[in-house]
Amino acid sequence: MKNVIGNNLTLTLFGESHGKAIGGVLDGFPAGVRIDEELIEDMMSKRRAAGTISTGRQEADIPEFLSGIKNGVSEGTPIAFVIANKSQHSGDYNALAGIARPGHADYTGHVHYLGFEDARGGGHFSGRLTAVMVAAGALCMCMLKERGIAIGTHIASLHGICDRKWNEADLDQEIALLNSRRFAVLDETKEEVMVQEIEKARMDLDSVGGILETAVVHLPSGLGDPEFDSLESMIAHAMFSIPAVKGIQFGKGFDFAEMRGSEANDPFEMKDGKVTTVTNNNGGINGGITNGMPVLFSTVIKPTPSIARKQKTVSFTEGKNVEVEIHGRHDPAIIHRARVVQDAMSALVIADALVTRFGQIDWRKGQ
Amino acid sequence: MKNVIGNNLTLTLFGESHGKAIGGVLDGFPAGVRIDEELIEDMMSKRRAAGTISTGRQEADIPEFLSGIKNGVSEGTPIAFVIANKSQHSGDYNALAGIARPGHADYTGHVHYLGFEDARGGGHFSGRLTAVMVAAGALCMCMLKERGIAIGTHIASLHGICDRKWNEADLDQEIALLNSRRFAVLDETKEEVMVQEIEKARMDLDSVGGILETAVVHLPSGLGDPEFDSLESMIAHAMFSIPAVKGIQFGKGFDFAEMRGSEANDPFEMKDGKVTTVTNNNGGINGGITNGMPVLFSTVIKPTPSIARKQKTVSFTEGKNVEVEIHGRHDPAIIHRARVVQDAMSALVIADALVTRFGQIDWRKGQ
Amino acid sequence: MKNVIGNNLTLTLFGESHGKAIGGVLDGFPAGVRIDEELIEDMMSKRRAAGTISTGRQEADIPEFLSGIKNGVSEGTPIAFVIANKSQHSGDYNALAGIARPGHADYTGHVHYLGFEDARGGGHFSGRLTAVMVAAGALCMCMLKERGIAIGTHIASLHGICDRKWNEADLDQEIALLNSRRFAVLDETKEEVMVQEIEKARMDLDSVGGILETAVVHLPSGLGDPEFDSLESMIAHAMFSIPAVKGIQFGKGFDFAEMRGSEANDPFEMKDGKVTTVTNNNGGINGGITNGMPVLFSTVIKPTPSIARKQKTVSFTEGKNVEVEIHGRHDPAIIHRARVVQDAMSALVIADALVTRFGQIDWRKGQ
Amino acid sequence: MKNVIGNNLTLTLFGESHGKAIGGVLDGFPAGVRIDEELIEDMMSKRRAAGTISTGRQEADIPEFLSGIKNGVSEGTPIAFVIANKSQHSGDYNALAGIARPGHADYTGHVHYLGFEDARGGGHFSGRLTAVMVAAGALCMCMLKERGIAIGTHIASLHGICDRKWNEADLDQEIALLNSRRFAVLDETKEEVMVQEIEKARMDLDSVGGILETAVVHLPSGLGDPEFDSLESMIAHAMFSIPAVKGIQFGKGFDFAEMRGSEANDPFEMKDGKVTTVTNNNGGINGGITNGMPVLFSTVIKPTPSIARKQKTVSFTEGKNVEVEIHGRHDPAIIHRARVVQDAMSALVIADALVTRFGQIDWRKGQ
Repeated sequence: MKNVIGNNLTLTLFGESHGKAIGGVLDGFPAGVRIDEELIEDMMSKRRAAGTISTGRQEADIPEFLSGIKNGVSEGTPIAFVIANKSQHSGDYNALAGIARPGHADYTGHVHYLGFEDARGGGHFSGRLTAVMVAAGALCMCMLKERGIAIGTHIASLHGICDRKWNEADLDQEIALLNSRRFAVLDETKEEVMVQEIEKARMDLDSVGGILETAVVHLPSGLGDPEFDSLESMIAHAMFSIPAVKGIQFGKGFDFAEMRGSEANDPFEMKDGKVTTVTNNNGGINGGITNGMPVLFSTVIKPTPSIARKQKTVSFTEGKNVEVEIHGRHDPAIIHRARVVQDAMSALVIADALVTRFGQIDWRKGQ
Repeated sequence: MKNVIGNNLTLTLFGESHGKAIGGVLDGFPAGVRIDEELIEDMMSKRRAAGTISTGRQEADIPEFLSGIKNGVSEGTPIAFVIANKSQHSGDYNALAGIARPGHADYTGHVHYLGFEDARGGGHFSGRLTAVMVAAGALCMCMLKERGIAIGTHIASLHGICDRKWNEADLDQEIALLNSRRFAVLDETKEEVMVQEIEKARMDLDSVGGILETAVVHLPSGLGDPEFDSLESMIAHAMFSIPAVKGIQFGKGFDFAEMRGSEANDPFEMKDGKVTTVTNNNGGINGGITNGMPVLFSTVIKPTPSIARKQKTVSFTEGKNVEVEIHGRHDPAIIHRARVVQDAMSALVIADALVTRFGQIDWRKGQ
Repeated sequence: MKNVIGNNLTLTLFGESHGKAIGGVLDGFPAGVRIDEELIEDMMSKRRAAGTISTGRQEADIPEFLSGIKNGVSEGTPIAFVIANKSQHSGDYNALAGIARPGHADYTGHVHYLGFEDARGGGHFSGRLTAVMVAAGALCMCMLKERGIAIGTHIASLHGICDRKWNEADLDQEIALLNSRRFAVLDETKEEVMVQEIEKARMDLDSVGGILETAVVHLPSGLGDPEFDSLESMIAHAMFSIPAVKGIQFGKGFDFAEMRGSEANDPFEMKDGKVTTVTNNNGGINGGITNGMPVLFSTVIKPTPSIARKQKTVSFTEGKNVEVEIHGRHDPAIIHRARVVQDAMSALVIADALVTRFGQIDWRKGQ
Repeated sequence: MKNVIGNNLTLTLFGESHGKAIGGVLDGFPAGVRIDEELIEDMMSKRRAAGTISTGRQEADIPEFLSGIKNGVSEGTPIAFVIANKSQHSGDYNALAGIARPGHADYTGHVHYLGFEDARGGGHFSGRLTAVMVAAGALCMCMLKERGIAIGTHIASLHGICDRKWNEADLDQEIALLNSRRFAVLDETKEEVMVQEIEKARMDLDSVGGILETAVVHLPSGLGDPEFDSLESMIAHAMFSIPAVKGIQFGKGFDFAEMRGSEANDPFEMKDGKVTTVTNNNGGINGGITNGMPVLFSTVIKPTPSIARKQKTVSFTEGKNVEVEIHGRHDPAIIHRARVVQDAMSALVIADALVTRFGQIDWRKGQ
């Protein structure tokens, strides 16, 4: 279904960038989860514009919860929330009506919605919709915390500038580090270099992208299903619903193409009476199902398509070639904000998988 | 749902490698589609073992259709088919009971199915299940043919040996070329080199993987949905249900990480009165929806985990470290067979998207 | 999924009676449908309390649309709406915490939600949630109007007092009549008698129920699917989500039990070059699929469980027998309000079936 | 989805009456359930033709299991099974091509499947498909037995001849009684009277229907969901997928129409430290969720539409009025066979609800 994701824990998402509000309904969320408002606010704030490197649009983006929470604890009923659209400079976009911004969904949205869409600010395709994903994912994060599962994402690279690699021996510590930082790099010295790279792109009326790497730790083994609902299928499905994601890989990912089986296979070994693997090339998943090792994956975030320089394109309403100059707010990079969207959508998938496997009541238990 | 994929056109898959039969049910398949048995046999045969570079298991793998087809035309009712398991050398695997073959789903399957699974030959996780995907996808390909949509996949690289790039100016021709070949390379001279590389791996009791690149042409624009049912989400979901796929990227994919927006954006232009793009970096998809350009994506196939050399691992039933030597049949590479599985699963997703958008009757029409 | 209904056109519902708001998200609603606000307000007002025979709670219950509608026309994106809860006399219910009102969901909700539910005023089980169903159904009614499909429901009987039967020869006229009336009887003289019966129940601190009969006209033939998604299955599924519905029958329904096949079968005949049936005992559905005749069904609405007299029950939190006297607002009958909920949920199912069969674009066409 | 039913435990159904085989795939069935072949054979045999009162078609109808079961225990993987069609007298039906048998799905199936259906013997709409439902339901019954849940159905009435009422005080005993009988009446003396009534119908070249009443005992409280996935919605959805079912009611059902709230409400009371109700008018369900009392519902089975006498109808291919005389096999009643289909589909719904609530592992536990 179009705007509903999940099997037993589902998120229904709605809204246009320049409509009254955006929001979501999280259904199948178990009863009795303590809702950590600070955690939600922390995740929401990480997604919001920050400093000169991001869009001028500054909205508090506080989700207003309408149902499903009583005295700070989930009721088990659907949790609905809305985020008001306060700061719509629609005028900025009016000039663009009928013009296909390159790399954007203006044209495809127009075809898909037969011309009835509200395209202002990207409409339903706006990156602003990711605020809904973060709010829902933050709720799921509250749930995962109660089971001891943690998730963190870092900017593995930004326009060629690389962060240091994970210390896989202590991912708990790495995740804690990332979640304490607003700019998600493991090597703190890389923040400034990356920010400069973003600034340089802005100066050039251009934009940059990069790679986000995510780790999920303390998952039970046996999570996910074979074939069609493999955890990889579920995570990939969710990640590609984040605008700008154009690729995903698990474990060694595309590097497997140059490896041999003897290098790629992760030998199992007993450790403290538990089955574990010596290496984690497969990113914690065998046959679509968790093996108890950290789930590791990375995505590529394409450079923001909204750039300030003049571009060639078409007016699809007039059926002719035109040039477009996009005024108004746009980010020379969104990867530093997208990291928390990736955390959030990961949390949603994992929470859904837990409820599917362990049920509505005992999802905190089980191997 | 675990073994059901699709929204309006669904495939239900069943079977274990060493059970009586594997098979599937294709539901929601429109009435009135001419079933091209030659096409089905061609796709099935491409998946089957071929020559010395593949497993010794040689089964005809002819799907027996039980319902939904009358006089070579689809009825609109569910199409069920079974593929008998004739050649099970279970003895080969008996020694392995309770031993986690590295890179395989033996251990995760054991946890997931609480120890009740039939793990012989990989059981429900066996690559053999991809025969079901191919049979179902071949049916969908019959449907797509009636709308003029074509799909082709080539081995873009095998253990570092690269095929030539797509000639994007004539993808019809490229796809026709690939579909006429049993070893899917564009540059015919690469077949021998790649086969030698596979042979080398076999000699070393090892295995190799690579990258598969797929093109889908003549899709209507407007196909797919925003966010959660983006065509990228749907295709990725399907691809990760193919065993050994560990990554997927659309258009420039991970190369976007080093590009700027001005390079990444595909300028639109009018051509013969039609909206088109000058470049196709985004692989035919903007905002999750087709823009009418070819859909381009690639996946990485990890090296076959079944290798003949001795490996360290555990017996999860006995809870101790052991060494394992896998006898019996195994492929030093499966990528040359997986190409048609990728075609098939692509066809399934596209056919589903067509029915979702254009309905059960008029899916041949519409822009 | 728990609070999501529909295949291609889905309603996600949320809210508790005494929370901030109730509401819904209608997803998959086609682009380009003119939203008739008067129609929506008319349907909402029919559900609202009216006169002395209904609850004292008088809220405007105006759905505020947050997304998916532009200039009075649907965009094709999710239509979200909220209905604020303004008039919560929670005090009325406080005394009841932990007490299972007979016939209500207090106890089952408590078990289901593990004690974390907000049970005030029935919480998520409140009849108030039907306002969301009506708002969503009214939107679907706008869609059906564009295809010429009409729906009407009358109170066939109320505590044994019967309305006159449908004039099946002119259902268009009958439906128009019903939709023009706030108290849905075909025989206008029955309104007063029924209202007196309700009043009598109120005087006795008691309540009454009855039977609602619905007709849907001008459906295309071929709608619905065999077996599991039969139109009867879909309609029944939706009707049982209306609180107080405890039975449903199509066509002659339970009267079939005393008929013979020769009486029950509807002979087909050609009429104006069209296939039609002489009688309509089967209520327009053969094998789960519409035959082009009016779809006829009726439901039974149990007497409102909230009655003012003292009742025996238990405190499930204290585990002991108690007596309960329910103060606050309650209706001695809801059937005269439920009629429009039945219309609304019928519209939702039919609209979904249309989109499933004819697609997102051409659902106005086709036989 | 058309031929897939269930949320977490799904049945995919396929086949035409005169095709090669019918069958199904049961997915999401938990691992570790002992498959009781005798129970399956018992249920299958109850559905089969018996004596002079049923169709001459006598097939063993033994489901051949293809996957998902190892050494008599479920593996957790999809259980696929086929039932071969051995005895197709297609000649009997050839004369009927293009003729709409009254009360049958010939015409609606023709419209729905655009004329491509295999209509012989009812095709995909044939009552024969209920053998698949019984096989799948019998598997679910094995699962329910492990949790102590029992289900039984009796012929409450047949063409006006009534069985005695349930002894609600000892439903365990009543269910055991019914399941020991091939003709499902509580009052054994009614078998002969009912059989005579069926014979009388046959002599008149006619048919009869009746009412089936089902009881499900020892369900945990808290099962089902509010609103859209209410247990009543789920059960009704499943029952209307059984051909010939035209109505369903829970508890007092349509009798509620003449009751007052004070009579209809079931007072709660503590009994042996457990919450229970004094009466069970609501059939064990409040607000869509089980309250721990027996779930009671009844359906109406319309008289078999296949009758031997000449009937008026149309040839929809020729577009003209014709008369039809249906030769070949047909039952003057199917209600005595349908009882086990009702048991089976009930088991499927309950098993699905258990897995949804308690998960894939611990569905045997929980309140």
